[in-house]
Amino acid sequence: MPHLLPLADEPAPERADAARNRERVLAAAAELVDERGADCLTMDAVAVAAGVGKGTLFRRFESREGLMGALLNRSETQWQASVMSGPPPLGPGADPWDRLMAFGRSRLETTLLHADLIRNAGRAGTRSFAAYSFAMAHVRHLLGGLGVEGDLPLLAVALMAPLELPVLDQQVTVEGLDVERVYAGWADLARRVVGA
Amino acid sequence: MPHLLPLADEPAPERADAARNRERVLAAAAELVDERGADCLTMDAVAVAAGVGKGTLFRRFESREGLMGALLNRSETQWQASVMSGPPPLGPGADPWDRLMAFGRSRLETTLLHADLIRNAGRAGTRSFAAYSFAMAHVRHLLGGLGVEGDLPLLAVALMAPLELPVLDQQVTVEGLDVERVYAGWADLARRVVGA
Repeated sequence: MPHLLPLADEPAPERADAARNRERVLAAAAELVDERGADCLTMDAVAVAAGVGKGTLFRRFESREGLMGALLNRSETQWQASVMSGPPPLGPGADPWDRLMAFGRSRLETTLLHADLIRNAGRAGTRSFAAYSFAMAHVRHLLGGLGVEGDLPLLAVALMAPLELPVLDQQVTVEGLDVERVYAGWADLARRVVGA
Repeated sequence: MPHLLPLADEPAPERADAARNRERVLAAAAELVDERGADCLTMDAVAVAAGVGKGTLFRRFESREGLMGALLNRSETQWQASVMSGPPPLGPGADPWDRLMAFGRSRLETTLLHADLIRNAGRAGTRSFAAYSFAMAHVRHLLGGLGVEGDLPLLAVALMAPLELPVLDQQVTVEGLDVERVYAGWADLARRVVGA
C-alpha cells in the first residue's frame, strides 16, 4: 500500500533532490582534486564541471574552504563505510590484528592522499568529533578483541595520534622519510601496544 | 687587556640592548598571560606593562599572533634549558626511565598550560622544526639508554604525538578526562614501548 504522508525518516522530494545535487557537485569537485590537486581547485572550475551556478556553490558551501571541508567529510564517510561493511581486512571478516594493520595503513594513506585538501580546508578541515569517535571506537574494539588490557580508549588514541597529518607531514614531507618506513614504525608501535 | 674590536660572538651594544628590551617585553607579556589568560591579552596592555610604545611592539613582533608565538618560543627555550641542565628527573642525573616519565609529565602540563597561547598564536604557534627536533632527539636518546631496539626516531615520535595540543584538547577540554588519567595512559604507553 503506497503511503500518502511522508515517513519521518524519508526525506521530502526537495530534500532528496538537494542531496543528489550536493553529491553531484562533490563528486565533480573530487574528480578535479584527483586530476589537478587541491591547491589548484577553483570555485569557477567546480561550478562549470558540476553544471551549477557559482552562486549556488557559495550558497551551499559558504566558501572554498567549506567545499574542501565537505569533500573531506565525504571521504571520511566513504572510509567509515569500508570499515563497517567493506571487504576484509579493513572491513569485517578478518581477525582483529589484521584489521588493526589494515586500519593503520588506510589511515596513513588516506591522510597523505588528502594532505593538500586538509591544508586547503583550514578550519573546515578539522576532523569532526563524530569522525574521531568512530575511529577511536573501532580501534578500541579491535584492541578488546585482541585481549589487550588497560585503558583502551587512551591506548586507541595513542595508536591514532601518529597517523594525524601534522605528524605525517613532518616525517614524510619535511624529513623525506619513506612511507613504508613510517608504516613499519607504526606497525611496530601497534605490536608493542598489543604485546604480541 | 680590554679589546677594542667587538669579538665575533659578542653582540654589539645595540644588539644586546635590543635583546634585553625584547626579554623585558616578553616577561611582561608572560606575566599578563599568567594573570588574565592569553584570550584577554591586548597589545595595549603589553605596551603599558613593558613601558614601550605600541609602535615598537608591532615593529618587533608584527602582530598579536607574532607576540604569542614569541612567548611560546621563550617558554620552549626555558623548557629545553631544564631538560639540558635543570634538576633531575627532567634534567640530567636521573635514570632514563625516570627522565622519560618526567618528560611526559612536563610536556603534558606545559602544553595544557599554554593551550590558550597556542590557539591565540595561530600559525605563529606552530612548533618549530628546531623545537620538534630537540624533543625528538631527547626521547630517542632516553629510549637508547633504556636498551630499546627498533626504529627509535619513529618510536620517539609515537611517544610525542599523544602529547600534542589537538589530542590533549580533545581528551581534556572536550571529553573532560582527568589529567592524571591521561598521564597514566601515556605512562602505560611508554611502558609498552620500552617493554619494561
